[in-house]
Amino acid sequence: MQDAKERVIEVFDTTLRDGEQTPGISFTRSQKEAIARQLDKLGVDIIEAGFPISSKKDKEAVKSISDLGLSARICGLARLRTEDIDACIDCDVDMIHIFVPSSKIQREHTTGMSEDAVKEQTYAMTRYVKSHGFECMFSAMDATRTDLPFLLDLYRVAEEAGADIVNVPDTVGVAEPFGIYELVGAVYRTVKIPISIHCHNDFGLAVANTLAAVKAGASQVQVSVNSLGERAGNADLAETVMGLNAIYGLKTRIKTRYLFETAKLVERLSGVQIPVTQPIVGENAFSHESGIHAHGVIKRSDTFEPGIMTPEMVGHRRRIVLGTHTGRHSIEKKLAEVGMTPSREQVEEILERVKELSASGKKVTDDDLYSIAEVVTGEVSKYERAVVLKELSVMTGNNVIPTASLKAIVRNKECKSAQMGIGPVDAAIRAIQDVIRGEIGGDLKLKDFRIEAISGGSDALAEVIVGVERGDRLVTARGVREDIVLASVEAYINAVNRLMQE
Amino acid sequence: MQDAKERVIEVFDTTLRDGEQTPGISFTRSQKEAIARQLDKLGVDIIEAGFPISSKKDKEAVKSISDLGLSARICGLARLRTEDIDACIDCDVDMIHIFVPSSKIQREHTTGMSEDAVKEQTYAMTRYVKSHGFECMFSAMDATRTDLPFLLDLYRVAEEAGADIVNVPDTVGVAEPFGIYELVGAVYRTVKIPISIHCHNDFGLAVANTLAAVKAGASQVQVSVNSLGERAGNADLAETVMGLNAIYGLKTRIKTRYLFETAKLVERLSGVQIPVTQPIVGENAFSHESGIHAHGVIKRSDTFEPGIMTPEMVGHRRRIVLGTHTGRHSIEKKLAEVGMTPSREQVEEILERVKELSASGKKVTDDDLYSIAEVVTGEVSKYERAVVLKELSVMTGNNVIPTASLKAIVRNKECKSAQMGIGPVDAAIRAIQDVIRGEIGGDLKLKDFRIEAISGGSDALAEVIVGVERGDRLVTARGVREDIVLASVEAYINAVNRLMQE
Repeated sequence: MQDAKERVIEVFDTTLRDGEQTPGISFTRSQKEAIARQLDKLGVDIIEAGFPISSKKDKEAVKSISDLGLSARICGLARLRTEDIDACIDCDVDMIHIFVPSSKIQREHTTGMSEDAVKEQTYAMTRYVKSHGFECMFSAMDATRTDLPFLLDLYRVAEEAGADIVNVPDTVGVAEPFGIYELVGAVYRTVKIPISIHCHNDFGLAVANTLAAVKAGASQVQVSVNSLGERAGNADLAETVMGLNAIYGLKTRIKTRYLFETAKLVERLSGVQIPVTQPIVGENAFSHESGIHAHGVIKRSDTFEPGIMTPEMVGHRRRIVLGTHTGRHSIEKKLAEVGMTPSREQVEEILERVKELSASGKKVTDDDLYSIAEVVTGEVSKYERAVVLKELSVMTGNNVIPTASLKAIVRNKECKSAQMGIGPVDAAIRAIQDVIRGEIGGDLKLKDFRIEAISGGSDALAEVIVGVERGDRLVTARGVREDIVLASVEAYINAVNRLMQE
Repeated sequence: MQDAKERVIEVFDTTLRDGEQTPGISFTRSQKEAIARQLDKLGVDIIEAGFPISSKKDKEAVKSISDLGLSARICGLARLRTEDIDACIDCDVDMIHIFVPSSKIQREHTTGMSEDAVKEQTYAMTRYVKSHGFECMFSAMDATRTDLPFLLDLYRVAEEAGADIVNVPDTVGVAEPFGIYELVGAVYRTVKIPISIHCHNDFGLAVANTLAAVKAGASQVQVSVNSLGERAGNADLAETVMGLNAIYGLKTRIKTRYLFETAKLVERLSGVQIPVTQPIVGENAFSHESGIHAHGVIKRSDTFEPGIMTPEMVGHRRRIVLGTHTGRHSIEKKLAEVGMTPSREQVEEILERVKELSASGKKVTDDDLYSIAEVVTGEVSKYERAVVLKELSVMTGNNVIPTASLKAIVRNKECKSAQMGIGPVDAAIRAIQDVIRGEIGGDLKLKDFRIEAISGGSDALAEVIVGVERGDRLVTARGVREDIVLASVEAYINAVNRLMQE
């Protein structure tokens, strides 16, 4: 490390600029404002809000974010042109990020500018930003493919012109940690102003490169939530911050307990799903299925977790998942939670059946585990289902209001309901909710509704997983049918029956 | 680099072992065989096929993979117990991978073994494997949190006992590249046998750590397809191999042109979706939307792509995506492909409207672009829709065969069809396919069928995107309705109409 351990690394978030350039992604103005507010709550130092010259919409969004009065500094992007910079100034940003292609290949095929022209324009536009009283960041685009002596010259020019910080972008994601360490080290020895690092993830190395740059002296990291950005995206905010904190022992101003909720907000607004295997914020980040791992974690979590990072630190939760690799400790723990204490032999039998179910390719829900445990322990008679579906008819069409009519036995009483919905699934769920509300009460909440395995073709098996909550208790259950409407109703009824079991 | 550039790095794939331990994932035996065959086609050196002692199913799967007669060597996992090793021997594997917890925290809370007991058992079980004539890999589990002198001792013991290779697992994903470089370097100076590296991705550093280990002398990398594995998974196969090839200039035996199809196969069989932002094999890996990037790439792809890695190398494809950040070059290129050459002013107008559509949160499909271009250029009258939906009725239920009846005008002729399906969406798609087949012919292929934004609740807007192919041409189109059945039919008809346009 070039500096003392005490230094605080600045976090520059580009979710709303490079992140929004993710092919296929576009945020509305109100979505951008919601993300900016969340980033501010999270504690990022700088929010790169957009590229004002690129469109009227973008300019309006940057202006409205500047007007939110956040603690974070707001940054706008600009090429080395007065009109680009003026557009940022119009938006009342705090900081202007100017950039120019610096590598030979990018200069020749985009701007056509010579090295000298790049240096002159860098000097002039840095002066222009500073003469208007703004904080100025200068980026040499494609720095990692730029001739080193020219690159260092260029940063020197920016410093002389008054730039407050220089950025080293690995624009096409070709760097690796040891190379970045050398490169940023060279920049560190060349200029006295702070250094920022901006990495792309084309080879999956963005976070490692960002950390290596900090090790070499960079004091600011450019990141995005869920690693959104051009192509494979930018360095992920959560991974970078937790790497700095937990591995390198460096501080940032991020309130890490909001990392999970920030990731989920951006997932919802971007439509880019967080994969289950995503580090830190993915569903599996602190989940355990295999016997050895789950047993270890139940005894002491840091046996099979990093330890230096816990789910609490990042606002996530730990889960014990049932599947082919489950061991008996997981079974015992989950059944104890609902007051079941099967014998050792019974646990072995339940375990065998859970593994069989999972081996057939199914997710094992709470409902599945309880059903198996009841059969094995012979306690099945205790379980009387509160809701039994009798008849269901659904129709829809281009001149038909989607309608479901349904007959069910709810607590031994025959109930019927016909409901309209915005589609056939919605109509059917409304009908079952209606009969349940009448007989059981309205304190059941549908918390999760997921359709799995619907890709491939129109005839794929539809598997619907729902989570229904009543008070403190959340139960997951599944419905599997070739018909998505029936699968949805089945899953809902299964979950309700489990919740009503006592 | 410790060795000459010419060395070939071995690829050890653990998709079927650590990958299958991904919470919630389970492969059937035939799925495992399909993945093993694909891995063999891809050129991996070793397939870790499972953990035979863990279940009967797993043992049977490992045996059946051994029996496939693949070129890859087949490996089975075992604890330091004769029954575990015997289970591997029963499966006719080529290589047995024995492991033992070596860190203090794991020893104390799992096996309860002292350092001396670990060394003794390591010696004995390595001998046991070798005395049966098998290739032996020894893993010190949680190596990165193990006391270094003891760790090096342990590897020396394994070497003395005849182990063929030692593995350095970063079991809980807490390493970083510079530390791994030091650690593996120390192991490299301690033993003469080859070193393997196995990293987890808890902080997003698995690939970087794997590459750093190779730099320090490791000659084998343990990876999984789509980075499946415990918690945040293992080092991704595609990223690691392309990093070795393109960044470090090292060889493997992987036929990289099969990387994309391998990732897609494992995506389908595991149900774990590849995020659009996934490096190398994600939908966006070689996609470009923003004006500056798309313009650069249209002129010369390596301006805004790594260059050292192309879509062709990995069996993927390049895409120009339309959205808020699109520039005019992308519009011109895509319209030229269908023979449209709007004027400069018209292009600006089309661009403005594409940006507006995208800013409202919609994906811009080919169909959308053509519609906008027709309105702007006034060429709308040329476009007569081949298929117009008139009436559609769909019914389903628990005692109803899902049935759709449909009336449409196909090439000016009224056509009707009633079809049964496995669900309401399938019935409706079959009905529209039936009337089209009759009038237009059967050379239209439904290539892609995706339901977007179905999470959240039963009343979410259903957006269906389909891709329909005819000969060389693939057209994407969208249907958006609150009713999933109508959205599906609308999307299909929109795509067909575009394909029939000339």
